[in-house]
Amino acid sequence: MVKSHERVDDLQLKGLQIIQNPDWFCFGIDAVLLADFAEANKRAKIMDLCTGNGIVPLLLYGKNKGARIHGLEIQPEIAEMAQRSVRMNKLDEVISIRIGDASRVKPEEKAHSYDVVTMNPPYKPIGGGIVNPTDHKAIARHEVTAGLETLIESAAYLLNSQGRFYMVHRPQRLVEIVTMMKKHGIEPKRIRLIYPKAGKRPNIVLIKGILGGKPDLVMDPPFFVYDENGEYTPEVHRVYEDIWK
Amino acid sequence: MVKSHERVDDLQLKGLQIIQNPDWFCFGIDAVLLADFAEANKRAKIMDLCTGNGIVPLLLYGKNKGARIHGLEIQPEIAEMAQRSVRMNKLDEVISIRIGDASRVKPEEKAHSYDVVTMNPPYKPIGGGIVNPTDHKAIARHEVTAGLETLIESAAYLLNSQGRFYMVHRPQRLVEIVTMMKKHGIEPKRIRLIYPKAGKRPNIVLIKGILGGKPDLVMDPPFFVYDENGEYTPEVHRVYEDIWK
Repeated sequence: MVKSHERVDDLQLKGLQIIQNPDWFCFGIDAVLLADFAEANKRAKIMDLCTGNGIVPLLLYGKNKGARIHGLEIQPEIAEMAQRSVRMNKLDEVISIRIGDASRVKPEEKAHSYDVVTMNPPYKPIGGGIVNPTDHKAIARHEVTAGLETLIESAAYLLNSQGRFYMVHRPQRLVEIVTMMKKHGIEPKRIRLIYPKAGKRPNIVLIKGILGGKPDLVMDPPFFVYDENGEYTPEVHRVYEDIWK
Repeated sequence: MVKSHERVDDLQLKGLQIIQNPDWFCFGIDAVLLADFAEANKRAKIMDLCTGNGIVPLLLYGKNKGARIHGLEIQPEIAEMAQRSVRMNKLDEVISIRIGDASRVKPEEKAHSYDVVTMNPPYKPIGGGIVNPTDHKAIARHEVTAGLETLIESAAYLLNSQGRFYMVHRPQRLVEIVTMMKKHGIEPKRIRLIYPKAGKRPNIVLIKGILGGKPDLVMDPPFFVYDENGEYTPEVHRVYEDIWK
């Protein structure tokens, strides 16, 4: 079940494990913050776009979010690895990973059929450098296969009316994100900025939107990753608590 | 020069004084933060929309920002008070206050004739409660006379190509602000969130835009007003330093 160059990490959360390939990428704090930020009850049908190794579906399941969690990943080798993680955890009844392009969800996916869409997309716009199309790491990090707008358009297509969208991205692109969400009918409702530590610019933004929602933005208190001593803050411990304990 | 119900406050900045009427309103930290946030060299021609008692033009002058600073205020009694503050400071050569509606700057003002536009507009949308049109305080706080979009449209009209727009507002309205700025060609370039203290939601947002600018957002480090002991932070002392020293 585990191939060469792969490793198995224990999520320390309900006995969950994940297969990762360090040559490609391993999940980071972004996915953990997104799974914490997303709200979903035990009946929700969730789609995780750009699911990669399936970390977000696994964490959502571990945090009792969602009845049925779908993941869509464009890179076949990575999707296949995610599928093996699902099997290893005996979660085939709950999580399903499909190989597919998140920017072209029709006709496989029915319109307005999900309660929640989560997304940890590539952060870097294409054109920011030469990208080798066979480079798994680059494809995960750059908008090689899809620009941000087509991904947001897909989320709007997939969501039920009043369905909820949760994305993690870079603050530099917040204006673009907000503009595109509004253009496609997803009203930004909540923003959480993640600051590496006091005195530093935020380097991660979490944003929640509601399809067809009314304008009414809530901005969360500042979230710091490290305190002045370079230790994780209590906030980080809270987010990771299930995973670490 | 000073009428009944009015008082004169020393800005502790180059000997500047301001006439205020506490029955209407007195300037707050918002204006001080805006004057700190706005960038303008000694040659810049500046327009301060919704100038109120003229605090922003006075602070900009005190901070060596701008060659010629204009202020526009819709309420005649308040504009007249601001004009007396300018005279009291012998700044008629530098600051000029005009009575006028910031949402209708044509034809008095020439298009694209300012390097910098600053604005500390009413924060509350009209419709949020009954507002007495003769209530100076309410008019200063509610969008009685102009919605936010018409004010942003005025700023876009007034600014030179690549001219800079600086506004202070409430974070709840950030999505609207960003959307309207983009609609009128002012690209959001920098956002500074002001948090009352750690663990609290931001209650003030400062935003910079450039007319015709390229998308490229910078988010500033978090700015806290109070520390954990309820004392002003060093950041606040830095912003006020000219005023307080």
